[in-house]
Amino acid sequence: MTHPFPFSAIVGQDDMKLAMILTAIDPKLGGVLVFGDRGTGKSTAVRALAALLPPIQAVHGCPVNAANPADVPDWAGLETHEMAERPTPVVDLPLGVTEDRVTGALDIERALTQGEKAFQPGLLAQANRGYLYIDEVNLLEDHIVDLLLDVAQSGENVVEREGLSIRHPARFVLVGSGNPEEGELRPQLLDRFGLSVEVRSPNNIDDRIEVIKRRDAYETDAAKFLRKWGKEDTRLRDRILTARGFLGDIETRNPALRDCAELCMALGADGLRGELTLLRAGRALAAFDGAKSLGRAQLRRVAPLALSHRLRRDPLDEAGSATRVARTVTEVLG
Amino acid sequence: MTHPFPFSAIVGQDDMKLAMILTAIDPKLGGVLVFGDRGTGKSTAVRALAALLPPIQAVHGCPVNAANPADVPDWAGLETHEMAERPTPVVDLPLGVTEDRVTGALDIERALTQGEKAFQPGLLAQANRGYLYIDEVNLLEDHIVDLLLDVAQSGENVVEREGLSIRHPARFVLVGSGNPEEGELRPQLLDRFGLSVEVRSPNNIDDRIEVIKRRDAYETDAAKFLRKWGKEDTRLRDRILTARGFLGDIETRNPALRDCAELCMALGADGLRGELTLLRAGRALAAFDGAKSLGRAQLRRVAPLALSHRLRRDPLDEAGSATRVARTVTEVLG
Amino acid sequence: MTHPFPFSAIVGQDDMKLAMILTAIDPKLGGVLVFGDRGTGKSTAVRALAALLPPIQAVHGCPVNAANPADVPDWAGLETHEMAERPTPVVDLPLGVTEDRVTGALDIERALTQGEKAFQPGLLAQANRGYLYIDEVNLLEDHIVDLLLDVAQSGENVVEREGLSIRHPARFVLVGSGNPEEGELRPQLLDRFGLSVEVRSPNNIDDRIEVIKRRDAYETDAAKFLRKWGKEDTRLRDRILTARGFLGDIETRNPALRDCAELCMALGADGLRGELTLLRAGRALAAFDGAKSLGRAQLRRVAPLALSHRLRRDPLDEAGSATRVARTVTEVLG
Amino acid sequence: MTHPFPFSAIVGQDDMKLAMILTAIDPKLGGVLVFGDRGTGKSTAVRALAALLPPIQAVHGCPVNAANPADVPDWAGLETHEMAERPTPVVDLPLGVTEDRVTGALDIERALTQGEKAFQPGLLAQANRGYLYIDEVNLLEDHIVDLLLDVAQSGENVVEREGLSIRHPARFVLVGSGNPEEGELRPQLLDRFGLSVEVRSPNNIDDRIEVIKRRDAYETDAAKFLRKWGKEDTRLRDRILTARGFLGDIETRNPALRDCAELCMALGADGLRGELTLLRAGRALAAFDGAKSLGRAQLRRVAPLALSHRLRRDPLDEAGSATRVARTVTEVLG
Amino acid sequence: MTHPFPFSAIVGQDDMKLAMILTAIDPKLGGVLVFGDRGTGKSTAVRALAALLPPIQAVHGCPVNAANPADVPDWAGLETHEMAERPTPVVDLPLGVTEDRVTGALDIERALTQGEKAFQPGLLAQANRGYLYIDEVNLLEDHIVDLLLDVAQSGENVVEREGLSIRHPARFVLVGSGNPEEGELRPQLLDRFGLSVEVRSPNNIDDRIEVIKRRDAYETDAAKFLRKWGKEDTRLRDRILTARGFLGDIETRNPALRDCAELCMALGADGLRGELTLLRAGRALAAFDGAKSLGRAQLRRVAPLALSHRLRRDPLDEAGSATRVARTVTEVLG
Amino acid sequence: MTHPFPFSAIVGQDDMKLAMILTAIDPKLGGVLVFGDRGTGKSTAVRALAALLPPIQAVHGCPVNAANPADVPDWAGLETHEMAERPTPVVDLPLGVTEDRVTGALDIERALTQGEKAFQPGLLAQANRGYLYIDEVNLLEDHIVDLLLDVAQSGENVVEREGLSIRHPARFVLVGSGNPEEGELRPQLLDRFGLSVEVRSPNNIDDRIEVIKRRDAYETDAAKFLRKWGKEDTRLRDRILTARGFLGDIETRNPALRDCAELCMALGADGLRGELTLLRAGRALAAFDGAKSLGRAQLRRVAPLALSHRLRRDPLDEAGSATRVARTVTEVLG
Repeated sequence: MTHPFPFSAIVGQDDMKLAMILTAIDPKLGGVLVFGDRGTGKSTAVRALAALLPPIQAVHGCPVNAANPADVPDWAGLETHEMAERPTPVVDLPLGVTEDRVTGALDIERALTQGEKAFQPGLLAQANRGYLYIDEVNLLEDHIVDLLLDVAQSGENVVEREGLSIRHPARFVLVGSGNPEEGELRPQLLDRFGLSVEVRSPNNIDDRIEVIKRRDAYETDAAKFLRKWGKEDTRLRDRILTARGFLGDIETRNPALRDCAELCMALGADGLRGELTLLRAGRALAAFDGAKSLGRAQLRRVAPLALSHRLRRDPLDEAGSATRVARTVTEVLG
Repeated sequence: MTHPFPFSAIVGQDDMKLAMILTAIDPKLGGVLVFGDRGTGKSTAVRALAALLPPIQAVHGCPVNAANPADVPDWAGLETHEMAERPTPVVDLPLGVTEDRVTGALDIERALTQGEKAFQPGLLAQANRGYLYIDEVNLLEDHIVDLLLDVAQSGENVVEREGLSIRHPARFVLVGSGNPEEGELRPQLLDRFGLSVEVRSPNNIDDRIEVIKRRDAYETDAAKFLRKWGKEDTRLRDRILTARGFLGDIETRNPALRDCAELCMALGADGLRGELTLLRAGRALAAFDGAKSLGRAQLRRVAPLALSHRLRRDPLDEAGSATRVARTVTEVLG
Repeated sequence: MTHPFPFSAIVGQDDMKLAMILTAIDPKLGGVLVFGDRGTGKSTAVRALAALLPPIQAVHGCPVNAANPADVPDWAGLETHEMAERPTPVVDLPLGVTEDRVTGALDIERALTQGEKAFQPGLLAQANRGYLYIDEVNLLEDHIVDLLLDVAQSGENVVEREGLSIRHPARFVLVGSGNPEEGELRPQLLDRFGLSVEVRSPNNIDDRIEVIKRRDAYETDAAKFLRKWGKEDTRLRDRILTARGFLGDIETRNPALRDCAELCMALGADGLRGELTLLRAGRALAAFDGAKSLGRAQLRRVAPLALSHRLRRDPLDEAGSATRVARTVTEVLG
Repeated sequence: MTHPFPFSAIVGQDDMKLAMILTAIDPKLGGVLVFGDRGTGKSTAVRALAALLPPIQAVHGCPVNAANPADVPDWAGLETHEMAERPTPVVDLPLGVTEDRVTGALDIERALTQGEKAFQPGLLAQANRGYLYIDEVNLLEDHIVDLLLDVAQSGENVVEREGLSIRHPARFVLVGSGNPEEGELRPQLLDRFGLSVEVRSPNNIDDRIEVIKRRDAYETDAAKFLRKWGKEDTRLRDRILTARGFLGDIETRNPALRDCAELCMALGADGLRGELTLLRAGRALAAFDGAKSLGRAQLRRVAPLALSHRLRRDPLDEAGSATRVARTVTEVLG
Repeated sequence: MTHPFPFSAIVGQDDMKLAMILTAIDPKLGGVLVFGDRGTGKSTAVRALAALLPPIQAVHGCPVNAANPADVPDWAGLETHEMAERPTPVVDLPLGVTEDRVTGALDIERALTQGEKAFQPGLLAQANRGYLYIDEVNLLEDHIVDLLLDVAQSGENVVEREGLSIRHPARFVLVGSGNPEEGELRPQLLDRFGLSVEVRSPNNIDDRIEVIKRRDAYETDAAKFLRKWGKEDTRLRDRILTARGFLGDIETRNPALRDCAELCMALGADGLRGELTLLRAGRALAAFDGAKSLGRAQLRRVAPLALSHRLRRDPLDEAGSATRVARTVTEVLG
Repeated sequence: MTHPFPFSAIVGQDDMKLAMILTAIDPKLGGVLVFGDRGTGKSTAVRALAALLPPIQAVHGCPVNAANPADVPDWAGLETHEMAERPTPVVDLPLGVTEDRVTGALDIERALTQGEKAFQPGLLAQANRGYLYIDEVNLLEDHIVDLLLDVAQSGENVVEREGLSIRHPARFVLVGSGNPEEGELRPQLLDRFGLSVEVRSPNNIDDRIEVIKRRDAYETDAAKFLRKWGKEDTRLRDRILTARGFLGDIETRNPALRDCAELCMALGADGLRGELTLLRAGRALAAFDGAKSLGRAQLRRVAPLALSHRLRRDPLDEAGSATRVARTVTEVLG
């Protein structure tokens, strides 16, 4: 209903902000998982990012936000295909959502009144080319999480039920927030999120005062507050757009590949998703930094985001994941 | 059916009464959670508050109590938009209520008889601009509590099911009562209530006699009893209305912000909702007190209400939450 | 099908009989809970009470037994409002009853055939102004018990489902029987029954013979047995009616209030329902005794009925509840 | 499909046969519970009893086997009321039976095709004036067992659902078989069966041979076997009919009542159902024996049947229930 | 789809083959339960038996395979009743089968389109006069197993639901396979299977090679393999048919009966089903052997099949069931 | 949506690649189960295999991919039967798939609109003559796994529900992937997969770099990458086709049979599926190798694939299954 809190006005939380910016530059990075205690502004940040993102060009009225007329599905029933601008979609997964509502389902009303099998698109259609946000992902039913991660990875929503056989593109960045106190995610699922960050309440008195001040100012007079922070948000949006343009040109030399592999082996991260995410996140950061090639500076910065959630628990090492990653980064990359 | 017990005639229970008055002054405070044993008059107090509150101006017949014609939803199907006075809505969540009844749902009757998808508003629509009361919130199903807290926070009810896509304002104060003996609330949920109070049976013989006497008098001849206490209630209602008018003018200086932050850090309260609630509750009390700015006096008084339910359990400190808050208030604010 | 066993012919069980008589004098006392082993005649007693109670005056054909035409609900669809006599309703809650049947629900038949939303009243409507009996209350589902106690307390049945929004009076005395061997009631629920009694098989050989003899006589030739005991029942019914008439005139002086409060505090009974029930039960007994004011004699007699089920379990005191109440009564009242 | 095994041809199992005969003489005795291992012929015996019982006079076509035209329910829709003979009904409760099928329910077919609420009677209607047999009663769902015992005791089936409000007589003898190895019955339920017996495979070689021989003969040529045992069955049927006629004339003197009470108190049997059942079973046996009054001989014989399943478990007494009853019978009755 | 593996080509597994042959001679033996590890050819054997069995004469088109026009049920709606030959029915119970599908149910299609209650027969109808095979009987839901055993024993399928009241013959041999590693059967159910056998992989190298060779030959060129083994199968089928003809003529003298009873008592087998099965299985084997009367040779051979699954577990005797039976056979029969 | 990663470009993982190739040569081998940690490229490999496989000839429009007009089912409703080429079907079992969707079901739409029972084929129809892939088979519901394995073995889908009685060919290779960390498969099910392999992330730095490099190259410019690897894939496809042609000609001499039996007995593998799979897999490899007869070289290579998942757990032998198979292969085959 009201304009969200400006992204730039978030105090601290640099990891979370960086992770979100990287997925805005390279949406294929595979989603962000934000861990943190209650009240640390996780959902505020996602909504802020939504407001920051540049609009997209899409066929007017297209239920899957098709970027060109050829991608409009038949079942959309569109007669004309004019292009129009719309905000980057940010879809909020409501608590207790049903699978039908997520994937889309048979349109019961049309089935009953007109006797035809029509498809009623779901949240995955709405989220195409945008963001899908799940608050408290650890409270969502497993089969819905599985489904979302599958679609997020394949970029396609396949509905094969009730006599329907529908496929439509569903490329989106999945952002999940979770409170580790309320239940863990299966390692299998953790691995399928690209980046992860942990957020904490600031433990510095001046930061806390600044947070309350800004929040109180925003709640007291939102319009005034947004005017104050609007320029900062615009500057950041422009920088993201520039980085997107350069992303394809970032060079990746062999030593950088070897750095990725050595980091992952040293950390004992299972599978290869860690290395690939590290590589892509590093390149997105290089683009954001205006660098020409991926270097150790970028890998150092993004390694904790890309790898912390892929570590096997080591019973002999009591340090937290982020600490273990940082230590290993120092050992391997110097 | 009968007029509730007068708010002013409640013996003692000052914390509970203050918490309810504060939410009447600033409904954005975020709800009150009343803990207490059976028979301590929790639901009596909520019903009493309802009777105390001033009426609201709303579009006649509007299902969401819209304050002006522009806010009347299309689906209400209203043809004229005259304003009329109605009591502050106080909606009682029945035991075993279904999600449909809470959020509203497809009007099955109209769907069957007239073949159209009409929306039948639920309790959230009725509660807009008023109070929503849940007795024994710890017995309610988790997904309903989640839903209520989400709507209470966003101020908007979003229904995306059965082919409906409805949004309507749903700003209300949530009041929950709970008996800690019958099951705990998740910390995540506790944090989303603005204030909390604990009520106990009076352990003073004269208070108890006074309670029985008043209660017996009320049950024996309610009309006579209400005449006796009506003036007191009117005086309190006027004072609340005055405080509402001044709320926006209460100054908040930096030392007060620092006091809020230091209190929360000293208590180790997670997140920032504690500080914001403390700030707002303090200002509401200042307005009630007729003060010009938020001072330590107000923070001292409201800190236990705003913070007791946000403390992490400390296994080394056996004192109750309220005691820990009081001790810290003394240490930090002197 | 056949006339129940006469109330007066029940051998012993004085507490149970007194509790039932008191609720017949003051139906606002809040229900009776009868604990006891199998075969101790719990349901016999309730059915006997039903037959003993005087008839009520009600609008002819009214589904809620309205005492005057103004109280007949619209949905009853009555065209004339003549008064007629009917027996005090005693409704038996069948095992496995559904919530729909208890509260009333949409009349599906009329909805289907005539396309209109009509209300089909439930057992709560039938029980208005009478008794509602639940055998083995500890086997009933929690949500039904909650619902019954809520309605019993508020005196009103609120149905807000399936597009219905119905309220009708539902004032009744709830009588529950339970076998403590088969599962406990939550303290929260116990507290909401006004009185409780425990029944046991007589452990005196002559009483047992007398019980079998009467029971055998009744089963062998019910009509003859009823003629024999009818006068006794009539005498008791007259005495109850007289007591009802005097109930409002019983004086309650301060020392009696103080006695109530001191008893409850000494027993550590939570909440205030104990004191209020003690007060009301004492006054009902005073009216039955033909006394002018509530005195210690009445409080001594009714204290175990009103308080035994409200005690916190005391792990250091192995005596049963009734014993603890009796001991405290002696200490406090002399 | 084929004629059951003749009751008289059952080898041994005297307790079971006597219990069944007693319920045939006095159907108000309250049912028989037969405990025993697999393969001991429990269901054979019930089916045998069914074939032994004399036919009843009932209104032709009446769904509740009404004994006279006045008892035919309206919903039966009978136009004429001629009397006719039909076999004593023996209804077999199928495994997994639904509550609808037991109590009767709305006739969905007529509701759909003719738009009227008609009642489709269930197994309880069929069983009126006869037997209801439940194989493996410990495997039946609790709510069905409760329902059956309630109806068996009240003699009336009350259906208050789906807008129906039907009552019809349902007086039957409940016979249950159970295997104690597969789950116990709640004491509350045990108490509501009138008699109980335990059956065992014969542990005598000649008896076993005789059992196999008869069974094999029956399976090889049923018609021949039935001719051989028919006279024996007819003799027993005549004796039962005679006993029924004399049952009302059996005298019960005070010493017999005292014997009943003393036996039950000595055994610590809860409740009074034990004494009443003992009394009635004794009188039925007296009638079968051709005695004029109830004497110790009859009480000695029926005490184990009437009391074994009503004993509290005594952790200090390792003897089985039947042994404890026998020992007490000797102590009390000599 | 393809012709099953020939029964005669099964290597070893003599017990299983004998048990199946005996049920083909006397279908009243009550079913076979085949225990065994995975991969031991249990389902191969059942399918092989099916192919071996002689065809039956049945009314053409009759859904219950009626042997003569008088047995065709009304609901079959047959207009003519010509006899025709059809293969012995062998019905395979699919995994996850519903009770409706097993027993038959209301034909929903006809109910909806023609408004009449028609019966759609189920698998029990199809299996009449044949075999019903359940793979992994220990994985089937209990209520389905109960239902199957009940019908198998009574020979009649009774459907009393949804306003239907249908009975039809359902005489079949139940064959179940189970893997003891995956869950046990209740003793109550075990007892209701007539025979049981255990199968194991051959632990002899030449047998194993022979098994693979034959299996490989069959899979490589089924037609050739079947030609090779067809004569053997035909010879066995003829021998079964001859034995069926002589079965009624086998004499059973007293010593044989005594042998049966002594064996069962010595083994402590509960109930009498063991003795009866032993007797019948022995006579079927005598017929197969071409003997005139049942002798000890036959009892020795079939005792393990008829009794192993009826033994109580003996904690002091670690030998398996088959061993215990064999030992006792030697002791009792010499 | 995009062309999958080329099979030949997979680095290492020789066992998995070989297992998949063998099933492409002999589809009767019975499926492959791939165990492995997350991120090891299991699903990549299956999708790669799908792209590698040669197209099949099928009747145009046939829902079961019939290889000739005679095999087209009636319910397909095809009017013409022209042959056409289509890719080898590879069907992906979606998470949370229903049994209806797998087996096919009544076409509800046609039932409602045209009042006829039509069959809507499911995934088993689509998969005929191809592959059915289940990701994370250990997360699938047991009854679906059972159903799939049953059909995979019998080659036929039987639908007996809702008044349908449909059979159609469903011959496919089942490929399942599983993560042993997330739940085990029952031994009964393990045995019904033909081959099993375990995959691990490479623990060699150069392999890991090569993997990332290829993956990154593919993701950056898929078309270019596919051109580079296309020839390699074509060469492999031709070799598979050649091997299929020669498969029937591979000789199997007695020593090879004896080797199979001895290996399985030495390993204590239950059942005979191990030996048969070993035999067939060996012959498929011989065909792939261009050998004339099955020799020890082939048995050595395929034994771990065919037998590892059929071993009983040996509590005294801590070595993994693959190690135990390898050791035994050395002992038995030298």
